[in-house]
Amino acid sequence: MKIEAVDFFYLSMPQVLNIGDGSQDALLVRVQAGGDVGWGECEAAPLVSIASLVCPMSHSACKPVQMSVIGQELNDVRDIYRIGDLVRAESMDLLQADHTLSGIDMALWDLLGKRLNAPVYQLLGYERAYPKTPYASMLFGDTPQETLEKGKAARAKGYRAAKFGWGPIGLGTVQDDADQFMAAREGLGDDGILLIDAGTVWKDDLEAASLRLPALQACRATWLEEPFVSGALKEYAALAAQAGDVKMAGGEGSHNFHMAQHMIDYAGLGYVQIDAGRIGGMSVSKAVADYARARGVTYVNHTFTSHLALSASLQPFAGIEEDVICEYPVEPKQLALDITTEHLLPDANGQINVPEHPGLGLEPNRAGLQSYLVDTEIKVKGQVLYKTPVL
Amino acid sequence: MKIEAVDFFYLSMPQVLNIGDGSQDALLVRVQAGGDVGWGECEAAPLVSIASLVCPMSHSACKPVQMSVIGQELNDVRDIYRIGDLVRAESMDLLQADHTLSGIDMALWDLLGKRLNAPVYQLLGYERAYPKTPYASMLFGDTPQETLEKGKAARAKGYRAAKFGWGPIGLGTVQDDADQFMAAREGLGDDGILLIDAGTVWKDDLEAASLRLPALQACRATWLEEPFVSGALKEYAALAAQAGDVKMAGGEGSHNFHMAQHMIDYAGLGYVQIDAGRIGGMSVSKAVADYARARGVTYVNHTFTSHLALSASLQPFAGIEEDVICEYPVEPKQLALDITTEHLLPDANGQINVPEHPGLGLEPNRAGLQSYLVDTEIKVKGQVLYKTPVL
Repeated sequence: MKIEAVDFFYLSMPQVLNIGDGSQDALLVRVQAGGDVGWGECEAAPLVSIASLVCPMSHSACKPVQMSVIGQELNDVRDIYRIGDLVRAESMDLLQADHTLSGIDMALWDLLGKRLNAPVYQLLGYERAYPKTPYASMLFGDTPQETLEKGKAARAKGYRAAKFGWGPIGLGTVQDDADQFMAAREGLGDDGILLIDAGTVWKDDLEAASLRLPALQACRATWLEEPFVSGALKEYAALAAQAGDVKMAGGEGSHNFHMAQHMIDYAGLGYVQIDAGRIGGMSVSKAVADYARARGVTYVNHTFTSHLALSASLQPFAGIEEDVICEYPVEPKQLALDITTEHLLPDANGQINVPEHPGLGLEPNRAGLQSYLVDTEIKVKGQVLYKTPVL
Repeated sequence: MKIEAVDFFYLSMPQVLNIGDGSQDALLVRVQAGGDVGWGECEAAPLVSIASLVCPMSHSACKPVQMSVIGQELNDVRDIYRIGDLVRAESMDLLQADHTLSGIDMALWDLLGKRLNAPVYQLLGYERAYPKTPYASMLFGDTPQETLEKGKAARAKGYRAAKFGWGPIGLGTVQDDADQFMAAREGLGDDGILLIDAGTVWKDDLEAASLRLPALQACRATWLEEPFVSGALKEYAALAAQAGDVKMAGGEGSHNFHMAQHMIDYAGLGYVQIDAGRIGGMSVSKAVADYARARGVTYVNHTFTSHLALSASLQPFAGIEEDVICEYPVEPKQLALDITTEHLLPDANGQINVPEHPGLGLEPNRAGLQSYLVDTEIKVKGQVLYKTPVL
């Protein structure tokens, strides 16, 4: 069967706030082939990814992404890998292409899973899926008191693990950060798994990050996530060498296999965090999961948006029993919750399971999403290259 | 003075061909502040970079690029570095942002150079600029005979160095490639500096690339450029270890300082090639030039488009006497030639000099560019976010 259509839908909350919350908009992807439909989601900047789908060709290695997808054969999993390679080659000089490909790749797997009547994790090569322990992924409060209350609330909801990120960390003094870290620990309780996310605030400033290590060790953080920007490999490795039991976590900024590989090879990571909506979809994510496992690095998904994106981000490591924790967004905007009708809720043991249904196992709530649709039109030389399709 | 306006102009040849020639379109950038005007150019995919300039905010680390530029103070060089850092932080999750920033950064330096009455290389910290030996940058012919003639023609025009790239290399047999390499050598002459560009054709296939080494050594290639995609650091290093006198060249795919740093640190490069129009402009390029020099790696510009882009790409290493060769496009499309009225022509010694004029030293040919303007409009929620401005 040939791929007949690739449609992008820009969705947004009525108002997008200037806060570190990536669930305020979304780019939903629909692929159609041979009467089947698959769905995916791209991170981030919907308008830019739409432009990269439909832009005029600049030269032979800078083509619009759709040129390497529409009309392609999609019969088995090899076709998905082939299409990914084609996009990376034909859109090599189009920087945004990896983000754009990500949602398409998810939709291709979803579609093929439905056609072959198998969950995506099976198509990816796993015999079974293992439950994951979710960590509640939250922003730090503006004050330690708020953070403490957030930690208590997560615990009250049954979470054994929680991640606190962004907010005021790194913007004030070392003591300010220490107060936040200790508040998070106090709120979560002594036996909780505490994860700290610095949101790249120290860029590549090793000393600034080092100064926070005593407090991170005192609060027994399992990991320090993104002290630096993704590329600061030497700084990551140097901090890891000083950090003792606090492991480094990072990798969400990777937009291709090699960037994740560099983090694993050179940054001294304990945990590699992959966003399937950025790195090129589940195909690339699975390759990273394999690479990490062979090197003793734990794979974790990076997900702060919808449950469609959550299912997609869990499939690539669903079959790795040793990789036990998963990111689970607990305070997404209503849009993210409304993207699917059903949700991946904790089971009786408080664990998250990928759906045992064909494809990604979750369908978009098309009717419920109409009010979030952002009407978009791109015209070049008087020709409409993109207009929001009917959802 | 405050930055009052950032305008993007999408320019294109009437027809864009499916060939490895990146001079078929362009994105010209104009920045205005305090009555002064600066110009720059972004590589590549004009529509996508326009979208990233004006897109709605997705969250606090995914803002349109213009939000971190318009209204900013621009009084001295520190402001340019500050604005770059701001874009990278505030548009961190917007993948295309580095390409978009590149043209803006060039325009900021151009503007400030005009205001301070100094060439950009001086503002970048160099006391003087050294002439560079240009290599004619060309595509391989479809046949060895065509390549031979191209080499002869370059030699007849006075070029002592030439680079042949892309075309059929890697698509046929090892012998096919050997025939092309030897034809290039024969055309250029025994004493010419011969450079070979594989255009990432072997992706990360070390064996396929290794098989070409005997022919590359036989034709005495000074470098093999981009045997692999930018991220294949281990494969680069392994090939470098086998290649003897043929040095590895690469880095044009770098879209931030760290990616270039990884190429220098881990890929065994002899030459690092930086495209100022992709990596974030001259600010980042200069940082790479400094980093490379300290590690014994030769810096070379990557330029295949206009002479405005050429001036911008030469400034970051203009003051490094040891880095003697520069890429010089010899068969760009008419658009690329028409972007500026004046051009950087070889001097009596056949060498290229950056203009000893304020800023980038070249002005766009606004009247001549009108016919290349690609009328573009982006509408979101009924609001026009972008419409081609008056050039």
